Amino acid sequence: MEKSRDQSTENVIYIGNKPVMNYVLAVITQINKGAKEVILKARGRAISKSVDVTETVRNRFLQNLAIADIVTGTEKIETDERTSNVSTITITLGKSE
Amino acid sequence: MEKSRDQSTENVIYIGNKPVMNYVLAVITQINKGAKEVILKARGRAISKSVDVTETVRNRFLQNLAIADIVTGTEKIETDERTSNVSTITITLGKSE
Repeated sequence: MEKSRDQSTENVIYIGNKPVMNYVLAVITQINKGAKEVILKARGRAISKSVDVTETVRNRFLQNLAIADIVTGTEKIETDERTSNVSTITITLGKSE
Repeated sequence: MEKSRDQSTENVIYIGNKPVMNYVLAVITQINKGAKEVILKARGRAISKSVDVTETVRNRFLQNLAIADIVTGTEKIETDERTSNVSTITITLGKSE
């Protein structure tokens, strides 16, 4: 498990301001290219969207894609005036074979 | 583990529109009352806030509180005109003893 996760570090999709379906398509594309795992990374308000992407992919497109891991974290954002914290999420999707 | 989770089903905090700190305080209060686990539930845009609550509690207040489990899901919302899906998250926080 850990080994396959290391191998697939290039399969990271950063969730931002685009519509959910763009990211859903990106996940499907990676899996169809043969990726065993796809990693979604989001922070701040995009965290909700990363869950939307996960649920949409699994319910509507790739029923055999399981959630291998969900990890939360905190990143510091430095602006001119102050340092603020932003929450992050990393969702690892893997084929259940 | 499963046993303690069953026992604490009353310790559910629903994340809504209030400020993050209100929910942080709710978690701390439950733990100080002796709860072994606190379960955060959120849906839609509040999912991001549930991660903020988790990170704030763990980084600033209760360092020994671990994430025992994170589960995502989908709920159907029925309106007069149509049925739409909303994503959900359930974050189980537990004391690491």
